[in-house]
Amino acid sequence: MTTTWTQATVPTPALVIDAQIVRQNIARMASYASAHNLKLRPHIKTHKLRQVAEMQMEAGAVGLTTAKVGEAEVMSELCEDLLIAYPPVDAHRAAEIAKLARKTRLTVGLDSLLAAERLSVAATGAKSEIEILIDLDVGFGRTGVQGPKAAAELAKQIDALPGLHVRGLMYFPGNVPAPGPEQSSRLAAVESILGDAVIRFREQGTSTEIVSGGSTPTAFQTHLMRSTTEFRPGTYIYNDRNCIEAGVSTIDDCAGRIIATVISTSVPGQVVLDAGSKTLTSDRNGPNPDCGYGLILEYPDAEIGKLSEEHAQVDISACGTAPKLGERVTIIPNHICPCVNLQNQVWWLDRDELTAVTVDARGLLV
Amino acid sequence: MTTTWTQATVPTPALVIDAQIVRQNIARMASYASAHNLKLRPHIKTHKLRQVAEMQMEAGAVGLTTAKVGEAEVMSELCEDLLIAYPPVDAHRAAEIAKLARKTRLTVGLDSLLAAERLSVAATGAKSEIEILIDLDVGFGRTGVQGPKAAAELAKQIDALPGLHVRGLMYFPGNVPAPGPEQSSRLAAVESILGDAVIRFREQGTSTEIVSGGSTPTAFQTHLMRSTTEFRPGTYIYNDRNCIEAGVSTIDDCAGRIIATVISTSVPGQVVLDAGSKTLTSDRNGPNPDCGYGLILEYPDAEIGKLSEEHAQVDISACGTAPKLGERVTIIPNHICPCVNLQNQVWWLDRDELTAVTVDARGLLV
Repeated sequence: MTTTWTQATVPTPALVIDAQIVRQNIARMASYASAHNLKLRPHIKTHKLRQVAEMQMEAGAVGLTTAKVGEAEVMSELCEDLLIAYPPVDAHRAAEIAKLARKTRLTVGLDSLLAAERLSVAATGAKSEIEILIDLDVGFGRTGVQGPKAAAELAKQIDALPGLHVRGLMYFPGNVPAPGPEQSSRLAAVESILGDAVIRFREQGTSTEIVSGGSTPTAFQTHLMRSTTEFRPGTYIYNDRNCIEAGVSTIDDCAGRIIATVISTSVPGQVVLDAGSKTLTSDRNGPNPDCGYGLILEYPDAEIGKLSEEHAQVDISACGTAPKLGERVTIIPNHICPCVNLQNQVWWLDRDELTAVTVDARGLLV
Repeated sequence: MTTTWTQATVPTPALVIDAQIVRQNIARMASYASAHNLKLRPHIKTHKLRQVAEMQMEAGAVGLTTAKVGEAEVMSELCEDLLIAYPPVDAHRAAEIAKLARKTRLTVGLDSLLAAERLSVAATGAKSEIEILIDLDVGFGRTGVQGPKAAAELAKQIDALPGLHVRGLMYFPGNVPAPGPEQSSRLAAVESILGDAVIRFREQGTSTEIVSGGSTPTAFQTHLMRSTTEFRPGTYIYNDRNCIEAGVSTIDDCAGRIIATVISTSVPGQVVLDAGSKTLTSDRNGPNPDCGYGLILEYPDAEIGKLSEEHAQVDISACGTAPKLGERVTIIPNHICPCVNLQNQVWWLDRDELTAVTVDARGLLV
């Protein structure tokens, strides 16, 4: 059902996605990828929507990336080349992956022989073939094999397992800062690790068909990590206040906005909005942790200082004029991905037409 | 469908609710309420489950409390006396409340004439009657009329509006600390405000049939705020690490536990679990903000120091033995309420039998 949009149309709190901004964000990333001969494999964790994934595929993405197996199952309906950038150490995951691999080309990123062995057993049982990327830590320190030598050794062991085929490498450059004075040396350090790994893989006859990078903050610097063949940004599709504070987005690039209502003005110096941690999440801003829980576009000097589950307490002491009781405001959240993940549906706004859209791939078990 | 429980039964991350602990928590609160002649109106924001609400009603609760109107709609199927402890300043909320009030006895807590006026208009249109509690700030500073005099004045204005009837007061003692040296003076300060308000209401002929308190940390001190007639704790049904750190629960009182798998041990001094901010939320611990994002029962010296959306980075440097790759662990989250709110279903564990239960009242629009 489609209705005409005004800020008063929807019950609040509401997450509204601006389709025009989504299209701009898709076009910009596709254009960058094309200009640098990079393949783009967007991470769907941010939107979890079939219709947005279709837009990404139509704009030239070579495939899609997911974290959960269930997300890949949903996306397999529209995409035949999926990367699950998450290690299947849990036996349930391995079984589901092996099953899904019978229907679609499936690649899995992992950093342990155990994960590969479990997947190999599952693939053998399901009579499916699964492609593998070795997750290599380039300095972020979350997951990933420690160093090119160990990565090459793991690749060799995995290539010998039935049902699995190593296609190359995966990395996550979350340690590279956003554009600024330190960025170029950190990019060079990442490339130094990648280049070494690629040479070692080639020397031992392991495929390096794919070297997969990621992360929205450094997406437009991916070509400077020259070994990279494809990248998998997620947040770029909507952007958020993290992107703004990191200097990689403007407000006009932010497609996901939360409409909230002022529900109390009883306490002096404060207004209360109906968007609490069950809407905005408790994610603080990454680059600027003390700027509050979201940017109120109509009152940029207001600070969302404290959240309860269904309340946001907004400090208005720095505002010239304050929002009135019952007034609606528009918030760009710190981190849009977990905000989307809280909604059963988002409001899709396309040229003043508003449609309720179910978030297809949220809340999945595996 | 019911299956036999072992820690390996469910795909991870999984939220498991221990039914025996739920029963104990219900019995303890019901017994306290009964001993002090207090009425209990549990807040369902924590569980959002019909079957738990039914258990609470069967144990003698006089009704239920919700934050969202949609939650009240779901609970109206099993309860005929509902309190929406949230002001309907948004017009959509007022309309839905007025509609629901035709089916069930409905009380609404609010702190502004505007909210009451909107509700009165909606009630008149829907030909329904709505009961009102005046939300009085007792020092927490989130919502609530500032002081007994202003509360009494607002009550008088609202009682004159068509379709509305003031039944008394509502307060939230979130400013009262957990048991400790400062608690008794703060309890006395709350009671001083409440007592004054009750006298003023009575003097002007406004009902004080209900004086509604709340909050799990001070639930068992409710009788010390002597004007209180009923209370609406929520978290007590499951409890969490906030309750443990506040000294009001033990581990054995915590019914909600997240089962997670170690999915990477590549980075020295760290293991990675498959429970990130999309499972544990980014809520820090209230009483002890630097204790990490949850308590790992099998490894209490480990610290969940950093969350991504689907990863928890656990510092194991203080652990004698460390969890192994593929091992499963049990986590008590900092704040159980928003964790439940992330799940489409929870696993209901009753004497080794496990059943998947849909979280009925999550993700609702209004």
